[in-house]
Amino acid sequence: MESLIIIKIGGNIIDDEKSLLSFLKKFSAIDGRKILVHGGGKLATELAGKLGIEQTLIDGRRITDAETLKIVTMVYAGYINKNIVAKLQANDCNAIGLCGADGDAILAHKRKASPPSGGGGLERVDYGFAGDIDAVNTDLISGLLDKNMTLVFAPITHNRQGQLLNTNADTIAQELARGLCKQYEVTLIYSFEKAGVLLDVNDENSVIKKLDWEYYQQLKPSPSGAGGKIFAGMIPKLDNAFTALNSGVKKVIIGKAENLEELISGSSGTTIKNG
Amino acid sequence: MESLIIIKIGGNIIDDEKSLLSFLKKFSAIDGRKILVHGGGKLATELAGKLGIEQTLIDGRRITDAETLKIVTMVYAGYINKNIVAKLQANDCNAIGLCGADGDAILAHKRKASPPSGGGGLERVDYGFAGDIDAVNTDLISGLLDKNMTLVFAPITHNRQGQLLNTNADTIAQELARGLCKQYEVTLIYSFEKAGVLLDVNDENSVIKKLDWEYYQQLKPSPSGAGGKIFAGMIPKLDNAFTALNSGVKKVIIGKAENLEELISGSSGTTIKNG
Repeated sequence: MESLIIIKIGGNIIDDEKSLLSFLKKFSAIDGRKILVHGGGKLATELAGKLGIEQTLIDGRRITDAETLKIVTMVYAGYINKNIVAKLQANDCNAIGLCGADGDAILAHKRKASPPSGGGGLERVDYGFAGDIDAVNTDLISGLLDKNMTLVFAPITHNRQGQLLNTNADTIAQELARGLCKQYEVTLIYSFEKAGVLLDVNDENSVIKKLDWEYYQQLKPSPSGAGGKIFAGMIPKLDNAFTALNSGVKKVIIGKAENLEELISGSSGTTIKNG
Repeated sequence: MESLIIIKIGGNIIDDEKSLLSFLKKFSAIDGRKILVHGGGKLATELAGKLGIEQTLIDGRRITDAETLKIVTMVYAGYINKNIVAKLQANDCNAIGLCGADGDAILAHKRKASPPSGGGGLERVDYGFAGDIDAVNTDLISGLLDKNMTLVFAPITHNRQGQLLNTNADTIAQELARGLCKQYEVTLIYSFEKAGVLLDVNDENSVIKKLDWEYYQQLKPSPSGAGGKIFAGMIPKLDNAFTALNSGVKKVIIGKAENLEELISGSSGTTIKNG
């Protein structure tokens, strides 16, 4: 089985041109099949600010009204995506940039109004043009990968009825990994601002090098939220990681994009793997 | 030899949502291989205005400084391209949106500072990040077309050194047609606001139905600009059309995108063809 690396990068890399260029150089040097999924960074918020379009965040999620959708489509699928592709091409990495509408790559539906994830209030939140993923077009994606192309995904999907939708980049990376793990041996890498999953959130040197389901159960907080060594904010990311493993993804690695080679070799970050 | 239709649409269609949707429906209904190249329309100028970025036009060409390049990349390759793709998908047309950097589809170089096309002054004009095309990646494009995908090109190219470049959409359509006519029997359609090439620029009913090289020589103005039935503004478009024919393109059609079926059947617009 061919191997495939799927890497999600976030704002901390995208917003810093020097870090981004250095990351893209390392990414280009990875042998074999690879997919990059990027988030948005500060640019969309800045552009909305300049245009006087107010941004509403609930539970850290952007409410995507029609004007905001226009902005994220421009910034994510236009500016960020095409600049990343051009920089990869300059590093001899034959990249092609896609959003979910391109080739019907990622089908989604508009999220229904729902109570906020905290569940505290009774009021439903309408997230606007936010997309929850229904299907990944693995034929298209594997066809391009098998032609030695590197795919770069912007976090925009569509509903096959002409509507673009704003979709979480972590979720896109996860769904691509789950969809493609029948054809490839998939490693999924989430890069973020920390060196990995930390035993002590205030100590960057407390990275947990290996995490499996049993160890995770020992470290995570109890259902009441008490105890536990792992920072509560990491729990959704880790739950997602185990969902991916249970779907057939080989391993999930969490750490700093700056240490890309070391993340892949296992000498940096947290490797999440069963057995 | 398989046939291929390449259609360029401009601002008059892009800026009017109803016209655009109606055009995309007709475009989706065309059987066989097809490519859509879109220009920019008013949106980029509007966005630049809102952001207070001054736009300079010389001889009708936008001077692309760094801030303007950012805007056209966002608007052309992001907003317009992805919305067109999503609407085509809704019409069961399996479209994929590309700029020239994607898959190294269109290689260009930054235009050198040059005298304005009128040639009147001696001063050189620096067009900024404007790209002149060097090569079209026909392997990539025919590979996608042969998988029954419809390609939608935004008028942005790259120089393979990490730089995106703003490139005229008419020229992209022409270079695609010239590059692909070794593999396909290519029809190139330029849509614009007039019903075709007019014998009398003030009379929409004076469309020249068929134009070949000999007839063109009779109708075009003399080198001094005197005489001639064809409006001077059409001459560069027509010279380009004959260049395309001489490179092996089967025919060039000029007319209104609203009449797409009629343009293809030859009952509307001007068909330019030799022999």
